[in-house]
Amino acid sequence: MVQEVVLGIDIGGSLTKIGLVTQAGTIVTKTVFKTEAQKPFPDFMKKLKLEVDNLISNSGPDIKILSVGVGAPNANPYTGQIENPPNLKWGPATPISKSIEQAFEFHVSLANDANAAALGEMLYGAAKGMKNFVTLTLGTGLGSGLIVDGKLVIGQHGVAGELGHVNVDPYGRKCNCGLHGCLETYASVTGIKRTVFELISNMREDSPLRSLSFEELTGTAISDAALSGDVIALRAFERTGEILGSKMADTVAHLDPEAFILSGGLSKAGEILLNPVKTSMENHLFNAYKGKISVLLSKATSADAVLGPAALAWTALERTTVI
Amino acid sequence: MVQEVVLGIDIGGSLTKIGLVTQAGTIVTKTVFKTEAQKPFPDFMKKLKLEVDNLISNSGPDIKILSVGVGAPNANPYTGQIENPPNLKWGPATPISKSIEQAFEFHVSLANDANAAALGEMLYGAAKGMKNFVTLTLGTGLGSGLIVDGKLVIGQHGVAGELGHVNVDPYGRKCNCGLHGCLETYASVTGIKRTVFELISNMREDSPLRSLSFEELTGTAISDAALSGDVIALRAFERTGEILGSKMADTVAHLDPEAFILSGGLSKAGEILLNPVKTSMENHLFNAYKGKISVLLSKATSADAVLGPAALAWTALERTTVI
Repeated sequence: MVQEVVLGIDIGGSLTKIGLVTQAGTIVTKTVFKTEAQKPFPDFMKKLKLEVDNLISNSGPDIKILSVGVGAPNANPYTGQIENPPNLKWGPATPISKSIEQAFEFHVSLANDANAAALGEMLYGAAKGMKNFVTLTLGTGLGSGLIVDGKLVIGQHGVAGELGHVNVDPYGRKCNCGLHGCLETYASVTGIKRTVFELISNMREDSPLRSLSFEELTGTAISDAALSGDVIALRAFERTGEILGSKMADTVAHLDPEAFILSGGLSKAGEILLNPVKTSMENHLFNAYKGKISVLLSKATSADAVLGPAALAWTALERTTVI
Repeated sequence: MVQEVVLGIDIGGSLTKIGLVTQAGTIVTKTVFKTEAQKPFPDFMKKLKLEVDNLISNSGPDIKILSVGVGAPNANPYTGQIENPPNLKWGPATPISKSIEQAFEFHVSLANDANAAALGEMLYGAAKGMKNFVTLTLGTGLGSGLIVDGKLVIGQHGVAGELGHVNVDPYGRKCNCGLHGCLETYASVTGIKRTVFELISNMREDSPLRSLSFEELTGTAISDAALSGDVIALRAFERTGEILGSKMADTVAHLDPEAFILSGGLSKAGEILLNPVKTSMENHLFNAYKGKISVLLSKATSADAVLGPAALAWTALERTTVI
């Protein structure tokens, strides 16, 4: 029997993940390769073509690919381009949709990687069955995806859902984007590292974190220290949770969602992060929302990264066939 | 020829406005009466019935009412109730939709007044033809309505779009809602009055505003003073615009809208408000949005208040007839 799948492609700054995914969200086969974003874009396309062809030929004769979904940083669904990405050295505008369409002769659906991840959570993940929720990916930066009434919010210019850049403090930390005090300078792996360094500079307590340089310090090291009761690490999670929770309350005042789904490196800390986030959000919520908004951890691992782009492709197929 | 209309009902804390409105947005006939919100709800319903019956009998035999749209403070479209309104003394939950349906035997569509106003702007006002925009009503408080992809954002619990309660400063001004530093304590007629009093307390300059008590002070008095070059009034508009603009930048990072539409008493100040709002928003915008978001003044007057509820009714009719 022929198995219908879509090809999910998740392009990251360091790794690109590809996989064939059924409508139910089963990853039939997948692989990972280095993006090598410092090389020219045509080199990436050659490599992608090779890897996808290998993936298809290894997946057996009974696989039928219906469509392709692509998630990439700074991808714009309206233009089909990756625009001004900070971590990919392919220039200001890469025609990713057209290039992949020409290489594989499938229809390509494109979304910002964090937006695609939100669709993945809705179809296959922690937000299954929800119609109003927000995903926050707490990695190197803070990515987000907004789902309103069962649909991804894309916005007028294709750039909705940049919650990493809502403002915490106009005189606060310098952000990569040029602004000061953006949420991702506090609530991300990089953000909590900055908080740990600020705390080390202000506090007197001993901590294993004092032996690490900024480059050596990782989110895992901070989580591990917090789990073993390290005061600085615990304080860092409290501050991060306080700031993130207060800004989530602002997001609630916009969208009145059912839940937030947290993913990414920082979310691996679990309750250590969740508890201060929930407390702070609840304290900052307008009365009408109090006690009504869930904060959940994503169940997705980095190996599931193709599910977001696959969900995007399946959603596009549904729209064109079921009217 | 029979003219098809909907009945728009805008229930306010002091006045209730009703009108018969065509699909093109022409108000065929309208009237206003005192809500008298301190009296029991059945008294209001009696008065509403009388006023609507008068309106209909005075509008001639060729009018055909298709549906009713109701806008009211704290109205929840899912429950059909007005819930915990600060300015209506009808108790914690008033079954407004059911009561009006029983009184007039028409289908009733209900929305929060500020949300209904956003639909009015989309169908008949400054946002005509737009699919992604945000309305901000700067009156006694700050009301808002979010339109995403041509639809009103209602949220999971029917309470989306409470931008009056996003946080400016967690240690800031006490808000009616119990929180501190909510946007509406700065960016509203009441907010700018508070700012004028803060400035009077800090500054030494002469000002006609120094002769007014807080109760005497009005938004118009502040606008008039600003127009004649009063330093305190001008500073108050600058601060208000700075705060409002920075929070609008956060809203952009959520929704990537085409425009904001400002209405309500404070917006009557025109450029004096618009200029600092636009400058501040632009300064706080993430790169991807810079130069792309318009800030417009609503053309609606308080006499047009029935257009929002009417737009709600027409939108509901379209959904049920055109599928």
